[in-house]
Amino acid sequence: MRAVGVHDGLSAILAQNHGFDALWAGGLGICTATGVPDAGVLSMTELLDAVVRMRRVSALPIIADVDSGFGDVNVVQRMVRLFEAAGVAAVCIEDKQYPKRNSFRGGNALEDPAVFARKIAAAKAAQAGDEFMVVARLESLIAGAGLDDALQRAAAYLDAGADALLVHSRARTPHEVGEFAERLRALGVSVPLFMIPTTYHRTTARELGELGASAVIYANHPIRAALRAMSDVLDQINRDDTTTSVETEIATVNDLFQVVGTDDLLDDEPWLGLLEQESA
Amino acid sequence: MRAVGVHDGLSAILAQNHGFDALWAGGLGICTATGVPDAGVLSMTELLDAVVRMRRVSALPIIADVDSGFGDVNVVQRMVRLFEAAGVAAVCIEDKQYPKRNSFRGGNALEDPAVFARKIAAAKAAQAGDEFMVVARLESLIAGAGLDDALQRAAAYLDAGADALLVHSRARTPHEVGEFAERLRALGVSVPLFMIPTTYHRTTARELGELGASAVIYANHPIRAALRAMSDVLDQINRDDTTTSVETEIATVNDLFQVVGTDDLLDDEPWLGLLEQESA
Amino acid sequence: MRAVGVHDGLSAILAQNHGFDALWAGGLGICTATGVPDAGVLSMTELLDAVVRMRRVSALPIIADVDSGFGDVNVVQRMVRLFEAAGVAAVCIEDKQYPKRNSFRGGNALEDPAVFARKIAAAKAAQAGDEFMVVARLESLIAGAGLDDALQRAAAYLDAGADALLVHSRARTPHEVGEFAERLRALGVSVPLFMIPTTYHRTTARELGELGASAVIYANHPIRAALRAMSDVLDQINRDDTTTSVETEIATVNDLFQVVGTDDLLDDEPWLGLLEQESA
Amino acid sequence: MRAVGVHDGLSAILAQNHGFDALWAGGLGICTATGVPDAGVLSMTELLDAVVRMRRVSALPIIADVDSGFGDVNVVQRMVRLFEAAGVAAVCIEDKQYPKRNSFRGGNALEDPAVFARKIAAAKAAQAGDEFMVVARLESLIAGAGLDDALQRAAAYLDAGADALLVHSRARTPHEVGEFAERLRALGVSVPLFMIPTTYHRTTARELGELGASAVIYANHPIRAALRAMSDVLDQINRDDTTTSVETEIATVNDLFQVVGTDDLLDDEPWLGLLEQESA
Repeated sequence: MRAVGVHDGLSAILAQNHGFDALWAGGLGICTATGVPDAGVLSMTELLDAVVRMRRVSALPIIADVDSGFGDVNVVQRMVRLFEAAGVAAVCIEDKQYPKRNSFRGGNALEDPAVFARKIAAAKAAQAGDEFMVVARLESLIAGAGLDDALQRAAAYLDAGADALLVHSRARTPHEVGEFAERLRALGVSVPLFMIPTTYHRTTARELGELGASAVIYANHPIRAALRAMSDVLDQINRDDTTTSVETEIATVNDLFQVVGTDDLLDDEPWLGLLEQESA
Repeated sequence: MRAVGVHDGLSAILAQNHGFDALWAGGLGICTATGVPDAGVLSMTELLDAVVRMRRVSALPIIADVDSGFGDVNVVQRMVRLFEAAGVAAVCIEDKQYPKRNSFRGGNALEDPAVFARKIAAAKAAQAGDEFMVVARLESLIAGAGLDDALQRAAAYLDAGADALLVHSRARTPHEVGEFAERLRALGVSVPLFMIPTTYHRTTARELGELGASAVIYANHPIRAALRAMSDVLDQINRDDTTTSVETEIATVNDLFQVVGTDDLLDDEPWLGLLEQESA
Repeated sequence: MRAVGVHDGLSAILAQNHGFDALWAGGLGICTATGVPDAGVLSMTELLDAVVRMRRVSALPIIADVDSGFGDVNVVQRMVRLFEAAGVAAVCIEDKQYPKRNSFRGGNALEDPAVFARKIAAAKAAQAGDEFMVVARLESLIAGAGLDDALQRAAAYLDAGADALLVHSRARTPHEVGEFAERLRALGVSVPLFMIPTTYHRTTARELGELGASAVIYANHPIRAALRAMSDVLDQINRDDTTTSVETEIATVNDLFQVVGTDDLLDDEPWLGLLEQESA
Repeated sequence: MRAVGVHDGLSAILAQNHGFDALWAGGLGICTATGVPDAGVLSMTELLDAVVRMRRVSALPIIADVDSGFGDVNVVQRMVRLFEAAGVAAVCIEDKQYPKRNSFRGGNALEDPAVFARKIAAAKAAQAGDEFMVVARLESLIAGAGLDDALQRAAAYLDAGADALLVHSRARTPHEVGEFAERLRALGVSVPLFMIPTTYHRTTARELGELGASAVIYANHPIRAALRAMSDVLDQINRDDTTTSVETEIATVNDLFQVVGTDDLLDDEPWLGLLEQESA
């Protein structure tokens, strides 16, 4: 399974049109699109609103990246109820202390494993149906706490009810996450395992699958593509004082109409008759 | 003055960083980013919410593209109060009947000029302060009703209190909008005049200024750039089964941090102390 | 079945606690709580947001009062998708022209039956699951168009796919709605029929059931109770310069805690330990 | 000055109509109306949305009760920017640790005074204009930490830039808050001082003014009145199976129209002409 990080309705539609299997409603992408740092300042309901906008335009399962859960166990329980009711397939909670900073920028301390296990248990207790999943995201490797810490935490979180694990690493190769997967198997643990190859991007999804990944998440490429492209276009307009040189490099207005289904609109409206008169 | 059409917080920040003078909160861009057709289906408050997200991250004046005003005069008055209170500089109302379709796709009938003038008057009567502006957008040229119609409407809308005009055209050259500007001047009318060179993009902003434009609006280039770039990146990931080939073509994760001001965060928090211990 | 008109989370909880069977998310109540006239100025998504707040705190089925559907068939289709996805059981669309005014204040013209039937058909075509219901609300009796008109419209709307009817009347007795029900039965039509005894309130729900009502809706009593009580309390505070005389007439602070389930919070949090130290 | 705690648009309108000077956007009232416990589970932006709905319908200054500020200093700074931009006059931040519980239910530990002073300083540094106020709410008396603690904290918070103080107490008489005011004066400190006579309600606002209160806040009486009245009405409907007995005890439908300004709507719409034809 391949998931792609999306940040708005358009990117959600594109992910679906390109055949990806799931949407990763990623904190970094959504915060960046919103214009705020990915540092725990976006509220739980702002994230939810962004996710709802994705849900409305794509049928793919959504995995919501909910940082460390936005607060204590009561906040986590309300969050699960709201996200499940909104049609989200899974939330991914990471074992950092609240408030968080993005994992790639120093970031903050690991949560106490027992406290985090309680969050997982509270999350699972809050869901109404059978299908909602809680993914526990392990930050041990990012925080430099090592593989043993990650494995101990994995066991505790699975005991608490976690349905899946996401093991995060910023190594340039998948050796860490591969070894994690192998040791997990060696312990007889069989559970969906997610990987995010942001730094070890030279390894293919197929290879990560062979290493033990159930799912690969391309967490933030659409927003990074959009940022670069929009910057370049604004640069060119500044340079040329027209948009002529960018016109062939960007989507057409008609592409915009197509991608959101303008042709699917019902159009035998009374006012269309008026229109025909008008244009006649 | 050059305004650029933006659709979210990130594009609003980029427009400001690139030295543009104003933000055009354009219906086509915002609808596309949301994933819905630009056909009157996005509600007034969904547009407002999108505009508020721009307002929070950019200090540039915002001109909101409010289609035909979302309903009758009472709806228009509430809309003006809400947008003005949200810190929007201007709304641009177009003289089409409700519900609308995007001007470039057939679109719907022109509104009766007297009915539309009442909308303008209602909008102006609703504003609380002195600075808020109501821009009347003339669709006569798009609808094929001709220059005389546009000029008669312009006079009626200015009489009703419009603070500025936007004359829209889908000609490949600016001859129509230039002639409109010239005849307006000949009538002794002096009013800010906006132009949107989507189709006559070979003419520079400077040249449009010489033709009489007070402001030029690049209405939808950022979203078009984003759509193309995101599609291309997803294509490449599909082709390669990794993101390696796209990594150098897109912004870095660090670029994402920079653009939203992550470095401006206050960071002498107690938990940072804990973090240092942890990483030690 | 008895439904009660609610306007926020608290009233939704109370309706459930008092044993009612369904929530009527009524336009008049929600607009009044919001502070705007019930005249088509509240947007579709503002209504939806209010309904979502009810959905989050009550398990009762919600019937959303969506006026004439907020726009054309495309708006109606998007509305159905959004309300269904939000967990709403039914929308009730009335056969008035857009924009609407509240039925009791003159109000506006009846919609053309064929145009309205298209709205119903569009609504039904848009729903994703099998359980969502579209209720057609007949305003013929309010508009003075008579019983024959109501019956012809009922037939057309049922043909178009309506799952239920709401027949509205402002007579002081249920003779009109009773006769409507009887003639419907005489035509061999069997369909859920809703009644709103705002003006014919002397007739019990049981009696209305005998007349043919499948469901009775008390459309706006909670908001009317709240308005009167809040006004009275503010009057008394003004008169007395203290709240002493109102304290026994209003709920206690502890009642507020109880009604929203404060006792159900998980409270073995680490910080509670700190609290105990603090209070010791 | 007298402020009254309001929770939605309607209560905000009523407070203004009854001559109060300011709106207290109180956490307990807003949480209860939303249907959630006042225990830190409502997000910052949910509170903001509720406040925006008040701002839209009342011209009174709004003091927003923002608990302990929803997070760290970066969250506090974003909160201040968002609330100020929304037209809020002041935020009142309390010196409890995050997450909070309502002060009357045990509640949680006092924040370290230096940490809280940093929050105040961060809040003041974030505001854009000159008029926005940050009120520091002292919970020392509620937490049993005593008057000396309250006074030391007051000094620290004022040093950090607080524009006003709110001293909270759950004593049955105003002796604590009066002594606090007196000792503050004795220290030569002159600053606006707010009091909330929820428990010492036998003392009039005038008397509290003589004791040193600059403003008195009736924090939650409208929601308490609404809860009781709605419960009673639903009880009666259950008992009687009609609404007849409640009709004279609650506001009329016409009262609902009046309070939100339905008569101020513009109504010379084209469709009204159609209506007159229709009703003729």
